[in-house]
Amino acid sequence: MAKEVRVGFLQNNPEILNTKSNTRRIVELLDEVQDALIVLPELATTGYAFENKYEVAEAAEPADVARSPVLEAIADKAARNSLHVVIGFPELSGELIYNSAVLIGPSGLQALYRKIHLFDREKLFFTPGDAPPPVIDVTGYGRIGIMICYDWYFPETARSLAFRGADMIAHPANLVLPWCLDAMKTRSLENRVFSITANRCGTESHGGRTIRFYGRSQVLSPDGNVLAVADDAQEEIRVVTIDPATARDKAISQRNPGMCEVRRRLLPLE
Amino acid sequence: MAKEVRVGFLQNNPEILNTKSNTRRIVELLDEVQDALIVLPELATTGYAFENKYEVAEAAEPADVARSPVLEAIADKAARNSLHVVIGFPELSGELIYNSAVLIGPSGLQALYRKIHLFDREKLFFTPGDAPPPVIDVTGYGRIGIMICYDWYFPETARSLAFRGADMIAHPANLVLPWCLDAMKTRSLENRVFSITANRCGTESHGGRTIRFYGRSQVLSPDGNVLAVADDAQEEIRVVTIDPATARDKAISQRNPGMCEVRRRLLPLE
Repeated sequence: MAKEVRVGFLQNNPEILNTKSNTRRIVELLDEVQDALIVLPELATTGYAFENKYEVAEAAEPADVARSPVLEAIADKAARNSLHVVIGFPELSGELIYNSAVLIGPSGLQALYRKIHLFDREKLFFTPGDAPPPVIDVTGYGRIGIMICYDWYFPETARSLAFRGADMIAHPANLVLPWCLDAMKTRSLENRVFSITANRCGTESHGGRTIRFYGRSQVLSPDGNVLAVADDAQEEIRVVTIDPATARDKAISQRNPGMCEVRRRLLPLE
Repeated sequence: MAKEVRVGFLQNNPEILNTKSNTRRIVELLDEVQDALIVLPELATTGYAFENKYEVAEAAEPADVARSPVLEAIADKAARNSLHVVIGFPELSGELIYNSAVLIGPSGLQALYRKIHLFDREKLFFTPGDAPPPVIDVTGYGRIGIMICYDWYFPETARSLAFRGADMIAHPANLVLPWCLDAMKTRSLENRVFSITANRCGTESHGGRTIRFYGRSQVLSPDGNVLAVADDAQEEIRVVTIDPATARDKAISQRNPGMCEVRRRLLPLE
């Protein structure tokens, strides 16, 4: 693992159902950086406020660079600019549609996560994921865990990633609940991991509903300190330099090894 | 369960090893309130910065109102003023000493918790508790969970209390880490429970060590909102009126029942 790596977010404002134009804009913004891990929002290429299942089916693509024009465009930019990109999109798999995120590196698709904790109307369109969120060892970057948006609400999600070795959590989001960005400080702190929440910005009006997303994408240190934060309304790509190895020291005091101290007997549902 | 109950904290500044005088002062402050649940800090009667095991042994008392002058004085005031009191103290049990908290009501001792996650030098003096933190159904007040200080760092502790039905968490503390009060907002929110963190204030110099405690005891709602907060340096007793039943609605959206949604497969160590 390199001593210092560049990580960050691309906060965008996609137009609902306008996948082609949204993807073009993403690729254009990604072109501003090289040699970095960039996290994008949940459903970054399609927008969020789907009216019905047919719209989602129309927008969904397979998690396969060879069969998805969106992922192909991202993979092409990743290869050219030596990027690792985590991006959310509606994934078509057989007859099912998932709210998914992929990790794409210079050599192509490296990981897929299907969102487990679906929020509100997402339950009308998406199938919940049935596999734990992945932790991927990415040469040079350390171990990257992925979770999506409302997964933040459950401490078990980030804990699961941390116990399986994540140094940083890539967190694509379309936040509507007000608490997440502060709660992510606790998530970083209690697991002593970096976290990158890429939240979209802008307002979406579609099918009689209007949703405002509040941006403020952020990169946090294992102490829960803010290393970078976007504003609430503008598209923005931001990169900071971190040493992922600092996430491997879990100690809280000379005598407290931190998260390893949790007592098994305390685990819920036992 | 009554529709509205009075709950709060007593933030005190004990003098190390001066148990008699500290207890007298606590009883004096408790006399200002009636018909309420009051949470006091960890080790509220003895102070915190013990130099060695002998000092702790000298200060420790059994968790038995009939054999502990400290608990007897608290129980007497609880009976006279119709109080429920959660208070931390060093507990002597056979040859072992625990960092414990008790719940004492008008009719005497109702529950005992022995701190599970000991912090730093506490490990030199105390034996860690070997039972899960208790949830006590207190007539009129709802279900009260107890955890102590550094237990906050582990989401599993509050989660364990919430899964076993706690409406509010009584949290005696002697905080030295800077993050707890903000993190408790996440603890309240992710479990949708009230929380009462009673932190001590003042500076302790003893045995060549000086520790500053930062007060700011707080009562939080299930949304993580601050219902009451003390200042950083003054002793203070504060009571607010809450409806504990609001902690029983865990829903986060029309389609999200909240903490019940956590996927069992995500639990750590499985």
